[in-house]
Amino acid sequence: MARTSLSGFPEWLPAQRIVEQQVLDVIAQTFELHGYAPVATRAVEPLSELLRKGETSKEVYVLSRLQADPEATAKENEDQLGLHFDLTVPFARYVLERAGHLTFPFKRYQIQPVWRGERPQEGRFREFIQADIDVVGDGTLPFHYEVEVPIVAARALGRLGELGLPPVRVLVNNRKVAEGFYRSIGLDQLEEVLRIVDKLAKVGADAVAAMLAEEVGATPEQAQACLALAGLSGGVEVVEAVRRLAAEHGDGENDDAAELLRTGLVELEALLAQAEERAPGVVTADLSVARGLDYYTGSVYETVLVGHEDLGSICSGGRYDSLASDGKRTFPGVGISIGVSRFVSRLFSAGLVEATRSVPSAVLVAVTDEESRAASDAVADALRERGIAADVAPSAAKFGKQIRVADRRGIPYVWFISVDDDGAVRHEVKDIRSGDQVSADPGTWQPPAEDLHPRAVPTTR
Amino acid sequence: MARTSLSGFPEWLPAQRIVEQQVLDVIAQTFELHGYAPVATRAVEPLSELLRKGETSKEVYVLSRLQADPEATAKENEDQLGLHFDLTVPFARYVLERAGHLTFPFKRYQIQPVWRGERPQEGRFREFIQADIDVVGDGTLPFHYEVEVPIVAARALGRLGELGLPPVRVLVNNRKVAEGFYRSIGLDQLEEVLRIVDKLAKVGADAVAAMLAEEVGATPEQAQACLALAGLSGGVEVVEAVRRLAAEHGDGENDDAAELLRTGLVELEALLAQAEERAPGVVTADLSVARGLDYYTGSVYETVLVGHEDLGSICSGGRYDSLASDGKRTFPGVGISIGVSRFVSRLFSAGLVEATRSVPSAVLVAVTDEESRAASDAVADALRERGIAADVAPSAAKFGKQIRVADRRGIPYVWFISVDDDGAVRHEVKDIRSGDQVSADPGTWQPPAEDLHPRAVPTTR
Repeated sequence: MARTSLSGFPEWLPAQRIVEQQVLDVIAQTFELHGYAPVATRAVEPLSELLRKGETSKEVYVLSRLQADPEATAKENEDQLGLHFDLTVPFARYVLERAGHLTFPFKRYQIQPVWRGERPQEGRFREFIQADIDVVGDGTLPFHYEVEVPIVAARALGRLGELGLPPVRVLVNNRKVAEGFYRSIGLDQLEEVLRIVDKLAKVGADAVAAMLAEEVGATPEQAQACLALAGLSGGVEVVEAVRRLAAEHGDGENDDAAELLRTGLVELEALLAQAEERAPGVVTADLSVARGLDYYTGSVYETVLVGHEDLGSICSGGRYDSLASDGKRTFPGVGISIGVSRFVSRLFSAGLVEATRSVPSAVLVAVTDEESRAASDAVADALRERGIAADVAPSAAKFGKQIRVADRRGIPYVWFISVDDDGAVRHEVKDIRSGDQVSADPGTWQPPAEDLHPRAVPTTR
Repeated sequence: MARTSLSGFPEWLPAQRIVEQQVLDVIAQTFELHGYAPVATRAVEPLSELLRKGETSKEVYVLSRLQADPEATAKENEDQLGLHFDLTVPFARYVLERAGHLTFPFKRYQIQPVWRGERPQEGRFREFIQADIDVVGDGTLPFHYEVEVPIVAARALGRLGELGLPPVRVLVNNRKVAEGFYRSIGLDQLEEVLRIVDKLAKVGADAVAAMLAEEVGATPEQAQACLALAGLSGGVEVVEAVRRLAAEHGDGENDDAAELLRTGLVELEALLAQAEERAPGVVTADLSVARGLDYYTGSVYETVLVGHEDLGSICSGGRYDSLASDGKRTFPGVGISIGVSRFVSRLFSAGLVEATRSVPSAVLVAVTDEESRAASDAVADALRERGIAADVAPSAAKFGKQIRVADRRGIPYVWFISVDDDGAVRHEVKDIRSGDQVSADPGTWQPPAEDLHPRAVPTTR
């Protein structure tokens, strides 16, 4: 019977899962060090919650019970459920449901699979793991969280460098800068301008200029100003460049727009300066980042993996003034979402990372004969008591075969128990990589720290 | 807008999620110490895989894409997907797909949510977390794994006692004992007998005897023998009691049945003796355990939480001679599944466990004024560098208010930075439980170990 994996639903071999788990552990630990509390939400939401962002409706997987009672169907359809396609919609619902039990500003992290019924392609899955942080306020939320969130993400991704992840570049922009700039130069159809400028990488500058002229009536000078803005990227000096550009092209007639631009530039400058201090060399301004600007209200973030820009953004987010609202209270938020499966699958397909072994065990305890298996179990249990993962050989085969059992799994040590002619029990442990074999006591022997657990490491070959 | 949680889809507050995560960590660590490798499978399986066990078809959630292309529907229906209702079916499929890349016997653990479209009730959810271990062989699988699996589960659940989980009792039986016994006394309709005896707790001995007479034609003596077998429970002495019962009631005409009974009793005896040695006081024989006997082929396991027997089994499994088969190769297995959500929800509803705080942070760094927030960030970063989770106050409010921010989250320490009249920077840290405030250095200060991370502990009130 031929069996094949389902396209778009990645599954890993045990050694790969060990890598993925360590990636998730590093991310979770970094989030916790910065004070984010864990939340897990159910996989399903009422369809009405999922469809509040109309744009994503095509992607939703809807659930039905295989043998639903027909009479119950009408009632059930009212409450029809779908799988969540991100962790933001469920979190917003969670905040509204639990507001009375939470303390604000509320910092949470959430690491779970999400599902989208999209056409799969490399780095785009139908089921994939996201790792999100969000800070949500009750009514207000200070700007400094817009600085903290990308720094935390940059640090989490930076720490993954030890495992073999290439460096990342976090690209930041600010919705207030874009809106203030476009309005200052006399372009008020913000959404259309953003949509057109977003095509820059795909269609080129001339096509964008033509579309701006045709679709929003931009003059050649206005179009050039838009292209010049989108061309700005780099460190804190970008802020001054935007100011010059606005002074050069601004019509000086719109005080509100100028004020919005000023505020946005102060925020962008603060973000860049503090990020350079606290996560050096990672965060840069990129005024062409347009995605999401139409629903974010302040800072926005995207992240590229250096050398793997074709993957698209592996970590995106921003500030929204209304993460959730129940009509009376409004909860502003800022958050970022790491697309873990997207870069983990690239780590594997590009051969960048491997696990030092495919099982947790540091030691395989050999079995001399089945009658003495209990002695081998006792050695393994003594090791486990002290936190050393151990397994016992599946059968009392020849020792050469038992060593191969360890070797095939990457287990570095094999433990032998023998009884001398005078009845004394001898314990010896062999490092099967070097062949060294030494006497050992199950109550005190310790492997080197680097052998204690399987580790995800950059591939050396 | 009124918002309520969905019945059957549990979700926890952050402090509860901290407890659940620690429960999952203890379980995963115990599995890893015993050499089980991590596997995660996708949430969905083709419906054809899910329905191979016909009995569960009513429980399956089927997926459809909200706006599926009508022309694609016919094709998509062929590959219709459903959410997995356990972790055994996906693992069996995984083993068949990946057999060429795995080493056998293959020991894996898997901790994931599963979904069942059942009517929810306490301890029975529509989405819940299972933690499974299985050992699977290629063609053969030694008996000793039937001993290991319940010991590992007993140890994992035993270690949860430190967090407040009541003691557990792992009840074991053996399909060969039941089949051998019933055949020895002349009852060959095994499935029917098991089904009837399984009703013992619900309908009582007289009703079971009557049903055995009526439905499988049992004589009064045969019915009494069945009831006597089901009444046996306890330690290794139970094995002798079964032997006596079989000798007393056996018709002596069926050598195969006697041999099967003998084998089963040797296995049961070995399991009980070794479990008593390696996980004392937890594993007992219970010859009334009948559930699952019709598809298991050797040892079977159920687990009750002492004092919470109404929850039903929180950890069940057994040996099956064909976990998976592709027609050419057969993969026997033995496994056990811990129903984590079932007992975690009881821990909360019975008020047995609590977290020492609702956030990871051990320290809240106070902010003297917004201009000096960078100094507070620097202290928090210095603590984080050394693995101490820290947060910075959301605003430069009065210190009393900042202390309340910590207090509401259960953060034990607040860090203050001040500048003397002569310009010297002073650092002090206050234990807000005792009120003690001492000088501290952000590069060296260490909280007591018990304050470093939030901990799940037995509720003291």
